[in-house]
Amino acid sequence: MDDIEIDEVATPELDDPVLIEGLPGVGHVGKLAAEHLLEEFDGELVRRVYATEFPPQVSVDGEDGIAELTCAEFHAVETDGADLLVLTGDHQAGSNAGHYRLTSTFLDVAESFGATRAFALGGVPTGELVEEYTVLGAVSEAALADDLREADVEFRPDEPAGGIVGVSGLVLGLGGRRGLEAACLMGETSGYLVDPKSARAVLEVLEALLGFELGYDSLEDRAEEMEEVVGKIREMQDGPAVPDDDLRYIG
Amino acid sequence: MDDIEIDEVATPELDDPVLIEGLPGVGHVGKLAAEHLLEEFDGELVRRVYATEFPPQVSVDGEDGIAELTCAEFHAVETDGADLLVLTGDHQAGSNAGHYRLTSTFLDVAESFGATRAFALGGVPTGELVEEYTVLGAVSEAALADDLREADVEFRPDEPAGGIVGVSGLVLGLGGRRGLEAACLMGETSGYLVDPKSARAVLEVLEALLGFELGYDSLEDRAEEMEEVVGKIREMQDGPAVPDDDLRYIG
Amino acid sequence: MDDIEIDEVATPELDDPVLIEGLPGVGHVGKLAAEHLLEEFDGELVRRVYATEFPPQVSVDGEDGIAELTCAEFHAVETDGADLLVLTGDHQAGSNAGHYRLTSTFLDVAESFGATRAFALGGVPTGELVEEYTVLGAVSEAALADDLREADVEFRPDEPAGGIVGVSGLVLGLGGRRGLEAACLMGETSGYLVDPKSARAVLEVLEALLGFELGYDSLEDRAEEMEEVVGKIREMQDGPAVPDDDLRYIG
Amino acid sequence: MDDIEIDEVATPELDDPVLIEGLPGVGHVGKLAAEHLLEEFDGELVRRVYATEFPPQVSVDGEDGIAELTCAEFHAVETDGADLLVLTGDHQAGSNAGHYRLTSTFLDVAESFGATRAFALGGVPTGELVEEYTVLGAVSEAALADDLREADVEFRPDEPAGGIVGVSGLVLGLGGRRGLEAACLMGETSGYLVDPKSARAVLEVLEALLGFELGYDSLEDRAEEMEEVVGKIREMQDGPAVPDDDLRYIG
Repeated sequence: MDDIEIDEVATPELDDPVLIEGLPGVGHVGKLAAEHLLEEFDGELVRRVYATEFPPQVSVDGEDGIAELTCAEFHAVETDGADLLVLTGDHQAGSNAGHYRLTSTFLDVAESFGATRAFALGGVPTGELVEEYTVLGAVSEAALADDLREADVEFRPDEPAGGIVGVSGLVLGLGGRRGLEAACLMGETSGYLVDPKSARAVLEVLEALLGFELGYDSLEDRAEEMEEVVGKIREMQDGPAVPDDDLRYIG
Repeated sequence: MDDIEIDEVATPELDDPVLIEGLPGVGHVGKLAAEHLLEEFDGELVRRVYATEFPPQVSVDGEDGIAELTCAEFHAVETDGADLLVLTGDHQAGSNAGHYRLTSTFLDVAESFGATRAFALGGVPTGELVEEYTVLGAVSEAALADDLREADVEFRPDEPAGGIVGVSGLVLGLGGRRGLEAACLMGETSGYLVDPKSARAVLEVLEALLGFELGYDSLEDRAEEMEEVVGKIREMQDGPAVPDDDLRYIG
Repeated sequence: MDDIEIDEVATPELDDPVLIEGLPGVGHVGKLAAEHLLEEFDGELVRRVYATEFPPQVSVDGEDGIAELTCAEFHAVETDGADLLVLTGDHQAGSNAGHYRLTSTFLDVAESFGATRAFALGGVPTGELVEEYTVLGAVSEAALADDLREADVEFRPDEPAGGIVGVSGLVLGLGGRRGLEAACLMGETSGYLVDPKSARAVLEVLEALLGFELGYDSLEDRAEEMEEVVGKIREMQDGPAVPDDDLRYIG
Repeated sequence: MDDIEIDEVATPELDDPVLIEGLPGVGHVGKLAAEHLLEEFDGELVRRVYATEFPPQVSVDGEDGIAELTCAEFHAVETDGADLLVLTGDHQAGSNAGHYRLTSTFLDVAESFGATRAFALGGVPTGELVEEYTVLGAVSEAALADDLREADVEFRPDEPAGGIVGVSGLVLGLGGRRGLEAACLMGETSGYLVDPKSARAVLEVLEALLGFELGYDSLEDRAEEMEEVVGKIREMQDGPAVPDDDLRYIG
C-alpha cells in the first residue's frame, strides 16, 4: 500500500464547492456538524482517502460484520445556497508529519473539485458547562473576518490560547499558503462531553454564511440524550436530580 | 538491512492455500490457535519476514543459546480439508505505518502462494471470565457471512465496538481492497489471561469451515495450567479455593 | 507540502552576520533573549521556515484572528557592533531526526547570508532560585573560549552534566562540523520559571562580545511581573508575604 | 546532514580484528567493559559514526567546554592475543528502525576492517544483589557455544527470558545473517546499579577467549566507589552500616 491512497468513487460537477472539514476533535463538534450536513442533505460519496498514518484498524459495520478500513471520506452535497464538499472520518493522523501530509492530500482533493473556500469546523474547550454557545473564528486572511462577524462569529485576540491543532489548524495554515480562503468555526463546548448543541451553533453560522437551511431534529435528539447522561451523572454525584429546566442548555 | 527482508526458505506447491494469521493479541488467542495448527499438522517453514519495524531483538533458544532475530514466519500446512499458509510470530509492528507495510508484505507472500482466502484469528475482550466461548466474526465482503454463521460464528452489529486493530484488522481491510476473501474469527476471552479455551473455540470454527480435524490434548493441557493459575490467584484473594468444578470453563 | 519549506521574505546584504539562535528551552531564556533583540533593534523578517516536524498547528493572532502556520523565523538585525541573523520560533522539532534536519536547514540559511559565527542562547537549570546570574559557555572549538571568558562567561568542566540538547546543542555540534565558529551561552536559571533576568545576563555577554548596546526596560518589566508571580506563589504557600527586598533576584 | 555519517579518522591495518561492542545497557556492563579495554590498551580512534537517530545532543568536555556531537566511536586496539575493534558510545538509537540501521552501519564498519568475529558485551538483570558473577552467553551459530563454555560462560535454555534487545541483540541477529561469528556475553548484575564487577567478569571471559591479559585496578576502584554508594544507601535505609566484609561482592 502507498502511504496515501485515494479511491475515486464519483466525480460529479460541482459549482464552486466549499470544503467543510469535520474530523474528530474537542467535543466532537466538527464531526457532529459535518455528519449532520450529510444526514440532512443526502450527500454523494465522491472520494475515500486511505493513509498509513491512520490507525491500523477496521470498523465492523452492519448485520454481516463488514470490515471497513479506516479512511476519511469526501461527500458532495448540493444545497440551495452553495455546493459543499464535506470531509469526515473517524481519525486524525498519528504523527506531526502525518498531519501535514494528510491535510495536503485533503486540500489536493478539494482543489481537484475546484474549491476555493474552506470551513474547518471544531470545538473550543471552555472547561465549564456552556450556557450560551458562542462560535469563535479564525481566518487565513483578514478580509474574511467581517463576513464572519456578520454571522455572529466572535474574534477574541489570541484565542484559542494554544492555537488550533490538527487538521483544522492546517486547513487554515496550509490552505492559506495555497491561496485558499479558509476559516475555522469553533463552537464553545465544555470539552468534557460530546456536544450536539455546540455543533448546532456552528451549523447556524454556516447557514447564515452559505445561504442554506437545515433541520435540527436529529441533533436535538442527540442533545437530549446527552442531557440525560449529564442528568444521571449529576444524580450520582449530588443525590436527587435537579429539575429538567435547569439542564436545558447543558450538553 | 532493507526495511523488510523476506527469506525464501522453501516454495512447495500448494493447492489454493488459505492464509491463517495468528500474531500476538488479546488473550494470545490467535497466536495459540495458529501455533496449535503447526503443532498438530507438522507444517513446513516456507518464509521468514524480517522488518525494521519489529523490535530490535533476538530470542535466545535451546541448549546452545542460539540467537534468532525477531521475525514472522509462514508455514505451509497440508490438511485433509485445505492447504494452509500459517502466519505466526512474536511481535506486531511498532508504528501505524509499520502495521500497514508489514501486512501488505504478508499479503504479498500469501498471494505469491496463490492464496485467495484468509482467516485472521484473534480474541475479543469481554472484561469478565468467559463461560461459553462464542466466536464473533467480521468479513471483507457480505457474501462470506453466511458460511461463517453456519459454523456457529456470531455477528453482532457494531461489535467489536472499537473495531479490529493491528495486523488482523488490516488482513481484512487491506486484503479486502485486493479482492482477498478475508474473515476475522474472534474468540471471546476475558482479556486478562492467555486463553487456550478461546483458541480452541476459534479452531473448531476453522475445522467446520475448512474440513479438517484437530486433536486438542496439548491445548487442554495449557488450559488446565491456566486454570491452576486462576485458582491460585483466587485463593490468594478469597481465602480457601472454590471447588474445582466451578472453574471448569475459566481460562 | 515538502518536509521543509523556506519562504524567502527578503534578502538584504549583511556584513558578516552572526547567527543568534533563541528557540524555546529551559526558562525560555534563549527565546526571551532573542525576542528582546528583535524588540530593541527593529529587525527585518528575512526567512520563514516551515517543517512537517513542527506540531500541526496554527497560532491565532490579532483582532481578526489571523491564523499563522507554525514556523521558525530569521530576522536580519543591524547593530553598532555587528549584523545579526536572529532565529526565533515557538517550537522545537518533534523527533530526534527532526532536530537534525531542522538544524541543518537553519545552518544552511545562515550560511546563505554569509554567517561564519553563531551563538546559541539558552538556560541551564540549577534546581533552585538563582541569586547571581552566571552565564556558562560551551564552544565548537577551543580557540573561542578565551574571548568568552573575557566577557565573564564561565566554563565548568563537564557542565552542563547532561550535555546540551535540542537545536542549541546541534548548532554547536553540526555547526562545528561545518567549520562554523559556534558558542552556546547558557544563563543559569531555576528551571521552574520563565526567567527574564537570566535572559538579560545572556544578552549582556552578547553586548560585550559583539559591541552593541541594549536597553532593558521591557525585560525589567517582565522580570517584575515574574517576581509578582513568585511572590504570590510564596504567599499562598507560606502565609504572609516576605518583604520585597528578599525577592530582588528571584525570577 | 545525512541520516548516518561516518568520519574516517584513521585506517590502520588490523589482523583479523574482533568487533567488541559495548554500548550503554543494563548495569552499564558492556560500556564499562569496552571502556576498560580502551583504558588498558591505549586504542587508536579509527571511526566516528554520527546518526540522526541519536539524541540531538552535544556533550561538553574539558576546561574549554568543547562541544562534541553525540556519536559512536570505533577504536583499534592491538593486544597480545588478537586485534580488537572496540565500539563504544553514550547512546543507543531512538526507534526500532534506527536500531536496525545503526547496527547495520556498525557491522559495515567492522567488515571494512576485515572483522569476521564479534562479541556483544552487556548485562543481564537478576533483580537482586549478585554474589557470584556468572556470565551468560548467546551465539549466532551453535558451533560457537563450546568455546564459550570452556571459558566458563553459561548457557541456560531460554534465558534471558525477554531475549536480547538493542544493538547487542542485533549484532547477533543481523551479524549472524551476514555470516559473522557473533556471541553475546552477558554479566549477571542486579540491574539497579552501574556494575564494574560484572564488567570484570565479562572481561575475564574475553581474556580467556582471545588470549590477552588485563589489569583491573581502575575497575576495582570504581567497584569500591559503588560499594560505598551501596553502603550509604543501606545506612540511610537500615540505620547503622553493616560491616564492610558483607558488602565485598556487592555492586
